[in-house]
Amino acid sequence: MAAARKNSPYELFYWPGIPGRGEYVRLALEEAGAPYVDVARERETGMDEMMALMEGEGTRHPSFAPPFLRDGRVVIGQVAAILLYLGPRLRLAPKSESAALWTHQIQLTIADFAAEAHDVHHPISVGLYYEDQKKEAARRAEEFRGARIPKFLDWFEAVLAANGATKEKPRLVGKSLTYADLSLFHTVDGLKYAFPKTMGRLLRSRPLVTSLHSSVGKRPKIAAYMKSERRQPFNENGIFRHYKELDR
Amino acid sequence: MAAARKNSPYELFYWPGIPGRGEYVRLALEEAGAPYVDVARERETGMDEMMALMEGEGTRHPSFAPPFLRDGRVVIGQVAAILLYLGPRLRLAPKSESAALWTHQIQLTIADFAAEAHDVHHPISVGLYYEDQKKEAARRAEEFRGARIPKFLDWFEAVLAANGATKEKPRLVGKSLTYADLSLFHTVDGLKYAFPKTMGRLLRSRPLVTSLHSSVGKRPKIAAYMKSERRQPFNENGIFRHYKELDR
Repeated sequence: MAAARKNSPYELFYWPGIPGRGEYVRLALEEAGAPYVDVARERETGMDEMMALMEGEGTRHPSFAPPFLRDGRVVIGQVAAILLYLGPRLRLAPKSESAALWTHQIQLTIADFAAEAHDVHHPISVGLYYEDQKKEAARRAEEFRGARIPKFLDWFEAVLAANGATKEKPRLVGKSLTYADLSLFHTVDGLKYAFPKTMGRLLRSRPLVTSLHSSVGKRPKIAAYMKSERRQPFNENGIFRHYKELDR
Repeated sequence: MAAARKNSPYELFYWPGIPGRGEYVRLALEEAGAPYVDVARERETGMDEMMALMEGEGTRHPSFAPPFLRDGRVVIGQVAAILLYLGPRLRLAPKSESAALWTHQIQLTIADFAAEAHDVHHPISVGLYYEDQKKEAARRAEEFRGARIPKFLDWFEAVLAANGATKEKPRLVGKSLTYADLSLFHTVDGLKYAFPKTMGRLLRSRPLVTSLHSSVGKRPKIAAYMKSERRQPFNENGIFRHYKELDR
């Protein structure tokens, strides 16, 4: 799993138009300064290539859904699996098996959190519009704001504290930045966009999560990326959506 | 990651009373004939030990939720991460990085499928009873039966076909049994319990998934386990629940 010098860029396949789950992969690639192509956005034939790969053309390992990453002959789907693969290659994961697995476990919990954030506006079906499940979404949002967000944030705060994190050096695992830090940054960022009132209230008593979020956002490569055209803004087609009626 | 001979049993921590997500880990341990303790069921102090570990007492890596596994000083949560760890140790994962990662990716997709199966009866909140979200569950079940189960089953059928699987030798990855085969077995088993009519209809046109399910169930160690007291039956407290009104 050596971080060999790469000549050909990584190819990221994800729906254009939203940060979405692809953003967890983009942030790792951006922080590492790794060359990559956001295929469906940057290549004219990108969407066709993506759909063909999902149908199993040109790969023995077709993914159930985007995002997926191609690195030469390897194609990998599922955000957490992609980051498990990229982690050591981008120097964004610890080396020991135990610490690497713990980083992965945190990532999987972030994935669960993001899935719940998505299901707030789609409690009935991904096949229906939000407008067709608004009533159910209002009920789910109440539980998400009141019970789930606090529970997840408390867990991340505890993980940071157990790692000896400080407001000056807020890291989830060890002393170096990992992909899990980047992913928690993005999740908090998305939740602040979707639930500004709720998050404003909840973050006040989670100082370590708060400072992880602000310190990652200030990293030179992340800050430059956020201002670039490569970064797509949050909107109401993605995971983290702002509907005023769901935030209180 | 060698499969060293173990003296001390693995310790599995999971809620007693349901197969639940713990079952994915149990099936791997059972198939491998690995010694393990189902702590919360088998030890008088098991529940207290489990809750203490979740609170961070006695581990630097407290899990967000059960199941988690303790192997000496290592504590790992999240089913897919546990199986990533156990796979090579129990000889239930392929050796090459690429094939091991693909097995893991399939496992993560199984985890997504199981989460959706759970949310059918809990579309609004895990903190409320089914009875308090029955109306929403009925809507979600319709989508799950009509769109999601077929989509997932089609993907697994395609993965099996792309692997050259046959009805006689239905394997998801390579030619040997992996933890992903065991996990798909359990998921199909759970769905057959929860949605007998739907699954009876859908499995007819998915011969590879069907034969994977029946062939895993006939493996000597799995069959013996299923008849033992270690196996807890499906019921209406777990992931896969049978509510007549949700199946058609």
